[in-house]
Amino acid sequence: MEAEYALRISRNVAKAVRKAVAQLSLEQRKKVVGNGVDGSPSKLVDVVAERAALEILLKEKVTILSEEKGFVGEGDTYVALDPIDGTFNAERGIPFYSVSICFSDSESLKDTFFGYVYSLESDEEYFAAEGEAFKNEKMISVSKKDDLTCDAIFYYPTKLLPFKRIRIFGSAALELCYIAEGRFDCFVDVRNMLRVFDVAAGIFIVKCAGGKVTDNNGLPLDNKKIRVGERINIVAANPSLHKKLMELIK
Amino acid sequence: MEAEYALRISRNVAKAVRKAVAQLSLEQRKKVVGNGVDGSPSKLVDVVAERAALEILLKEKVTILSEEKGFVGEGDTYVALDPIDGTFNAERGIPFYSVSICFSDSESLKDTFFGYVYSLESDEEYFAAEGEAFKNEKMISVSKKDDLTCDAIFYYPTKLLPFKRIRIFGSAALELCYIAEGRFDCFVDVRNMLRVFDVAAGIFIVKCAGGKVTDNNGLPLDNKKIRVGERINIVAANPSLHKKLMELIK
Repeated sequence: MEAEYALRISRNVAKAVRKAVAQLSLEQRKKVVGNGVDGSPSKLVDVVAERAALEILLKEKVTILSEEKGFVGEGDTYVALDPIDGTFNAERGIPFYSVSICFSDSESLKDTFFGYVYSLESDEEYFAAEGEAFKNEKMISVSKKDDLTCDAIFYYPTKLLPFKRIRIFGSAALELCYIAEGRFDCFVDVRNMLRVFDVAAGIFIVKCAGGKVTDNNGLPLDNKKIRVGERINIVAANPSLHKKLMELIK
Repeated sequence: MEAEYALRISRNVAKAVRKAVAQLSLEQRKKVVGNGVDGSPSKLVDVVAERAALEILLKEKVTILSEEKGFVGEGDTYVALDPIDGTFNAERGIPFYSVSICFSDSESLKDTFFGYVYSLESDEEYFAAEGEAFKNEKMISVSKKDDLTCDAIFYYPTKLLPFKRIRIFGSAALELCYIAEGRFDCFVDVRNMLRVFDVAAGIFIVKCAGGKVTDNNGLPLDNKKIRVGERINIVAANPSLHKKLMELIK
């Protein structure tokens, strides 16, 4: 599959999800309607968004790993889908949640060729392909800030940290894009909690924007699989700041 | 002054600030144009918002303490004004910043009779008077969650905490309203950083919504003054959870 084609599909998915979610009241969104593939409770907003997304994706020759249903579809292209990243915010009307879609030529993140994140409330579209990253079609890059008095997104501090600001917004997909465009300088989540569909697209977008993304040991995430149960730790920043973060968290 | 009149003024201020801010590009917003009353750099977005707010407030018989200008106006009613709470977000286009206005019959917070917070991006209006708190004109109250496996807003953790979720959005005024309506269960910021115009309205709104708000020693904030340089620590939650938070942070 070509990146351009993946972009077209992703945009259709984002549009469909946006429309489907907008039709639900906050009361409806938070209704529990079963369990996701990893056992966590599914909310109606997740299920409705996934249905809207799959209606489009299942027309393509792709194997999709989605938060609610696990694997569906068939094809050589693998898609990691989070129809709503930031469900808690979506339920409560906090304007910070996104659709996240990652396309790979294999089950491995190292073969990712397209990443897409769409902020459902603020109409911001991020995507990356072929070593370049874009926000609303303008090329973006990570910040150049190279010391720890920076603006950080950090899940969760357990000691006093030297950052200027710490923020935690609750959508890792979107927060990684904030790193890609230099809105924040770094993203750290080493709690062994992130799931591949939450962050696969964001990781790729940060890398295409010139960032370095590794696990808490400084190792690349290339061998992480688009697979249920895969957990990911992330340290993301420009390469110089990344080095200092590794010292900080070790 | 009557609460009803304060509401009318506040709505005019919110409307004017919203309009003024919307006219600025993100590039323009972040331009440094001097220093605020406490020495921190003033951004154009702050100055433009303050100007819009003061144009309305200075027609009233009120003494206003504002982030940028310090005391202006004259009158027996004291107003603590933060024209933009969450400047960093406003500059970066992150949809989480607010106008905060607090009216008191004296320089002390204990004589507060009206609190108003308006979320500039999500069109949510919070206000409180006479022991009742409202969001978009519907009465609100704090959550009933009474143990520490709750959803917390916490600036900043320095140890492992038992909460289910921690979020840090970057507008204390708005985050306190999230406590008032039960979107989150508690707000803690005991870094001695909060300023009176950031939080005066939010404190009052939480209290009118049934919450308990104290400093880090469990003491009331009634004697805090609407005054430059006043710093405030806050623990806000329903009374039962508040007690457990005091144990946690001591």
